[in-house]
Amino acid sequence: MMSAYDFPLLIKKLLLTPLTRGSDKEIVYRDGSRYGYPTLRDRIGRLGSALTGLGVRPGDTVAMMDWDSHRYLECYFAVPMLGAVLQTVNVRLSNEQIVYCINHAEASILICNLDFLSAYEAIRSELKVERVIWISETGPLPAGLPGLGEYEQVISRGDPRHAFADFDENTPATRFYTTGTTGLPKGVSFSHRQLVLHALSTLAVIRLSGDDDVYMPMTPMFHVHAWGFPYTATLAGCKQVYPGRYVPEILLGLVRDEKVTITHCVPTILQMLLTSPAINGVDLRGLRMIIGGSAMPRALCEAALERGIDVFTGYGMSETCPLLAVSPVPSRLHGTDEEVVTRMKAGQALPLVELRVVDFDLADVPHDGVTPGEVIARAPWLTQSYYKNPEATETLWEGGYLHTQDIGVMNDQGYLQITDRLKDVIKTGGEWVSSLEIESIISQLPGVAEVAVIGLSDVKWGERPAAIVVKRFGAKLEAADVREQVMRHVTLGAISKFAVPEHVYFTEELPKTSVGKLNKRDLRRTFASPAPV
Amino acid sequence: MMSAYDFPLLIKKLLLTPLTRGSDKEIVYRDGSRYGYPTLRDRIGRLGSALTGLGVRPGDTVAMMDWDSHRYLECYFAVPMLGAVLQTVNVRLSNEQIVYCINHAEASILICNLDFLSAYEAIRSELKVERVIWISETGPLPAGLPGLGEYEQVISRGDPRHAFADFDENTPATRFYTTGTTGLPKGVSFSHRQLVLHALSTLAVIRLSGDDDVYMPMTPMFHVHAWGFPYTATLAGCKQVYPGRYVPEILLGLVRDEKVTITHCVPTILQMLLTSPAINGVDLRGLRMIIGGSAMPRALCEAALERGIDVFTGYGMSETCPLLAVSPVPSRLHGTDEEVVTRMKAGQALPLVELRVVDFDLADVPHDGVTPGEVIARAPWLTQSYYKNPEATETLWEGGYLHTQDIGVMNDQGYLQITDRLKDVIKTGGEWVSSLEIESIISQLPGVAEVAVIGLSDVKWGERPAAIVVKRFGAKLEAADVREQVMRHVTLGAISKFAVPEHVYFTEELPKTSVGKLNKRDLRRTFASPAPV
Repeated sequence: MMSAYDFPLLIKKLLLTPLTRGSDKEIVYRDGSRYGYPTLRDRIGRLGSALTGLGVRPGDTVAMMDWDSHRYLECYFAVPMLGAVLQTVNVRLSNEQIVYCINHAEASILICNLDFLSAYEAIRSELKVERVIWISETGPLPAGLPGLGEYEQVISRGDPRHAFADFDENTPATRFYTTGTTGLPKGVSFSHRQLVLHALSTLAVIRLSGDDDVYMPMTPMFHVHAWGFPYTATLAGCKQVYPGRYVPEILLGLVRDEKVTITHCVPTILQMLLTSPAINGVDLRGLRMIIGGSAMPRALCEAALERGIDVFTGYGMSETCPLLAVSPVPSRLHGTDEEVVTRMKAGQALPLVELRVVDFDLADVPHDGVTPGEVIARAPWLTQSYYKNPEATETLWEGGYLHTQDIGVMNDQGYLQITDRLKDVIKTGGEWVSSLEIESIISQLPGVAEVAVIGLSDVKWGERPAAIVVKRFGAKLEAADVREQVMRHVTLGAISKFAVPEHVYFTEELPKTSVGKLNKRDLRRTFASPAPV
Repeated sequence: MMSAYDFPLLIKKLLLTPLTRGSDKEIVYRDGSRYGYPTLRDRIGRLGSALTGLGVRPGDTVAMMDWDSHRYLECYFAVPMLGAVLQTVNVRLSNEQIVYCINHAEASILICNLDFLSAYEAIRSELKVERVIWISETGPLPAGLPGLGEYEQVISRGDPRHAFADFDENTPATRFYTTGTTGLPKGVSFSHRQLVLHALSTLAVIRLSGDDDVYMPMTPMFHVHAWGFPYTATLAGCKQVYPGRYVPEILLGLVRDEKVTITHCVPTILQMLLTSPAINGVDLRGLRMIIGGSAMPRALCEAALERGIDVFTGYGMSETCPLLAVSPVPSRLHGTDEEVVTRMKAGQALPLVELRVVDFDLADVPHDGVTPGEVIARAPWLTQSYYKNPEATETLWEGGYLHTQDIGVMNDQGYLQITDRLKDVIKTGGEWVSSLEIESIISQLPGVAEVAVIGLSDVKWGERPAAIVVKRFGAKLEAADVREQVMRHVTLGAISKFAVPEHVYFTEELPKTSVGKLNKRDLRRTFASPAPV
């Protein structure tokens, strides 16, 4: 029994399938490079060998700042295959945030595209990492640039046949930082096992064909490792296309020229593509496109369908690797009224995902398509902790389920639809009431200039809604008017009676965040225990 | 970090997907029973609860003797979900073998269909297991029948909400016995993790749709757990049909009435279906059928294609869970000459399977479609040991790869084609030579009544072929004639020069096994070191 091979779920094993199947598909970088899977394996070997030569050891962190590229894909494999952690740095963050993330992750080497040289120079004195491998797409490096040299030179010194050892599949493979509206960025990690299982389950439901599909990301590779698709596409042995920095005309040109069949993006990118003049030269019929990040508006969905795009939703978050659910349309709904609505839903759970919509006691709400609850999940690929942040971890995993902070409803076929963020709902009288909905109702009163609705804690009801109202100049408006307005909608059956504000406060101005959103956190602090009006 | 849920790959998790998705599909047993996934979950709970009440504990073994049924499916889940091992007994074995297997596995309870009552009575005194749950499809049990009662009565006393605890995913879940031509049956086990990963990878490549597919096995559930498909179909949330004892007319009737879309069988069953008069009333167009167990003859493949069956090969063995490869036809081959040939191949490796064709030093042979080598594999679902048999385990896993004992060739797209069994080839001069091919050449000599070719070990060449010849009565035949006959085919380029027998022995009779096959094991013993002729 000594010789039996106990197969660990390591990222390097994802390469087995295209190599064993002799995939002749290419990895394409914009107009800059194209090569096959054997070359990908060689370059991963060279990179792993070179990094080892530079002293990278298991447990070390290598940070990456690049646009979507074949080099990023090489790092997706080579760094974790050494037992090291690949930190995918969000290049859109502020300089301060970038410094925080790289220092917090304790990166020992940075691989950085020259496009970010000025940002680097601005933060260099604060960065703890001193060693940089530069990526240059425009010839030799600037004279006198400190660092370990240019990426291609560095890997050219490596051994393409570098042997990557087996190790524990629970070893961290990737790390990146999520930024909320409040607090410091939080580090999210995924292990080899988690990434392999996410890729396999995604493959089972999204169904990439190594023969027929061509994959290109339109969600950046620094963002939740492009939703894990570079791993999934490699496991499928697909042709893969990496578009560099996102420019709508270039993205559309690559879809056309490289015959891309599957991609994914946020609604904003889809909107940019649909309004680009370049779209008229591109046949998008049959292109599968998974939309995530935020809800897909109906008009956008319909505009994409008109172009022949097979557009549907994927649901998840940074902490969930990310996919929990997708909403492909079952054949029985094709051509029906339900088709568009289904494509816009968060979708059905992926294989092995336990997706629940629950009340305050973590009991399932009815799957009737109307009863809201909090969305919680278990799956083999959910982050187990925020890096060096046990308090936030405990909140994330309260009760042994990952809390998405989303409010949703589920129908009897298990299709989840997200209706609110948890922070925007009020838990009262055993029900969830949407603060956005109450705000919308109150804002229809002629005397209301602005309104915010928040939940204030209440011994008997859990929370009770409070309306904070800014009157229009000179308007006559009483608390009773506000309550009556909501009560009218209760009578119409449009909203629960628990939605009628317990408290109504008038104020001169509502606090806003730096990007102009209502700062409800401030409001809750201010109105937590004032004297009732 | 205490609360984070570390998701184990347990068989019970396969039920999450159909239940979370609210599958409304049915589990159908012949004309006897049909119910939905919630009822399946309830009955699994009842069975688990009842078995617990009967004293079944983690690590215990429950043996099963039934035809393909919904009850078998319930046992596939409930028994492993208790941490116990489900032993799937091959009801076609001899009574002696059945006794050996059940005793060797140390089963503590037997679940047995009354159809096997006479076999049970014949072996009862030798069986160590004393407690039997009977399955009766024909009313009350015979008066005075000892045992724990009838299956339906037993589970009716169980709690449908029985809670199944989490435990180590490496816990054994199933066990069955393989019978070779020689030696005692060997016990093969699979863990929860292995079965879950096999199901997920199978789903990714075979692609069962919970909405559109209807699954029915035509390989028995006692045989490598029906190739794992009941687990895969459950994970997909498909409608599932279990046909009881295999009767061609009933199988065809179920395909028609229940609209089966995917099944699997050995070539013999396909042959039985195609020659059944009942086939003319059944539209088989679009039925996906995976063929395994032995090579699919071309004529059979073509006959199935003529009926519109989407027939293709699956490759594996009992020790491999079983699937290692499948041969779906890529779209570019549809309608080409290569299509039929591709469907007959063992196929391309499943996701996460490392499938290699190697020479004597475990080095890969060229993937040129012609160079033969031994097929070896690694995957996350290969049995780690034969039960209580470390010597056979070590042989199976020599060098850290599972040895299939098959000889094959691989082409540049990674399609494997099996050409021989290892026991039928001779390793000589760095090449594999097929003994069956040399036998076929020698048997064309008019003086030859019978011939066997075996490999005898040789210090210089590894092995050298020896021909053991039975002359026709009165024929004049010398060793030189035999060598010349093979040499003629060498000159034609039909076979390697290493195929020319080093030794030629004449004998009166060739030893045979009980089923009339050449007993090469005996021949090797007899001729291992005789005086050369």
